[in-house]
Amino acid sequence: MTTPTRTRLSPDERRTQLLDLGVRLLATRSLDELSIDVLAEEAGISRGLMYHYFGGKQGFYEAVVQHAADDLYARTAPPAEGEPLERLLASLTGYVDYVIANHTGYRSLVKGATAGNDNLRAIYETTFAALADRFFTSDPGGLVIPDTPAVRLVIHAWQAMVEDLVLTWCEDPAGLSRDDLLHVITASLPALVDTLP
Amino acid sequence: MTTPTRTRLSPDERRTQLLDLGVRLLATRSLDELSIDVLAEEAGISRGLMYHYFGGKQGFYEAVVQHAADDLYARTAPPAEGEPLERLLASLTGYVDYVIANHTGYRSLVKGATAGNDNLRAIYETTFAALADRFFTSDPGGLVIPDTPAVRLVIHAWQAMVEDLVLTWCEDPAGLSRDDLLHVITASLPALVDTLP
Repeated sequence: MTTPTRTRLSPDERRTQLLDLGVRLLATRSLDELSIDVLAEEAGISRGLMYHYFGGKQGFYEAVVQHAADDLYARTAPPAEGEPLERLLASLTGYVDYVIANHTGYRSLVKGATAGNDNLRAIYETTFAALADRFFTSDPGGLVIPDTPAVRLVIHAWQAMVEDLVLTWCEDPAGLSRDDLLHVITASLPALVDTLP
Repeated sequence: MTTPTRTRLSPDERRTQLLDLGVRLLATRSLDELSIDVLAEEAGISRGLMYHYFGGKQGFYEAVVQHAADDLYARTAPPAEGEPLERLLASLTGYVDYVIANHTGYRSLVKGATAGNDNLRAIYETTFAALADRFFTSDPGGLVIPDTPAVRLVIHAWQAMVEDLVLTWCEDPAGLSRDDLLHVITASLPALVDTLP
């Protein structure tokens, strides 16, 4: 069997390719700076075809944000084997490196999600809930943290803290190395859970 | 000397009175639900007079948000005397009770500040920087926390965590009492600082 020298992509494959490009462009651009026009030009296709794939400006943004969220989720997957704390550290390292590499786009996603677009907000909340769920599926024995409503409340707040910490650190590291930052993030989770009654 | 039965307020006093009313209305309303029309009707004055005092919709929102921020700052003033940790707890109690009493409006202020209006963002950032400064002016000996760039970075993130924690708790307390919540908030600050290298 030979590989064809030229492949005609299905519409779904072409759409995915465009979304990959959109997410790559977001690494160094805000969501406001990524328009259908910018992506059409970068991809070398017409605006009309972009509208065909995404059905309009809002559909385009939501598709890019969902694709970025899926990307973040995939890149923070913990390894299948290992101690709970090691797997947690590996997952958090994936998160920190993702935000460092994409902080302009990431910051604008947070802004877009907070700013009142309900669909972007839902993608954001669903992604962070899925990231939080990993603490319990990765550690079903509750070795690191037990699964209770109060712990879930604290983890939600801890995620807000980690997001702020990494984004602020990207602007000014305040003398902390990436490893120092990872240590603060990893050690703060059990420290916070320990403050619960 | 007798008290006049009717006082003619100066324009500044009248404006302050209108802002007080605006902040009170925000306790149970979002910023989107508080229009110049709503405030004019509640205050029993004309729309035209509202425009005279605030110079338009944007000026009105900024004045209300600044007034709410000043109110928050005043209500979280630590007592002049006492041990650093007691004064910190008193200040944090003021913050938690303020958010509990005003969470609809508070949530919308956070949203407005994040959503990309630079003036609202500046009011929000300035207020939280002033609240953080209190940790160091209240505790010049560094008994609770030392004043370093890394500690300032962590406190910024801790503030994001506390904000998320209190707002989420208002929606669903997850079995935690107000005192439990205050304990988590107060104990988490030194616990977080302890994770720094």
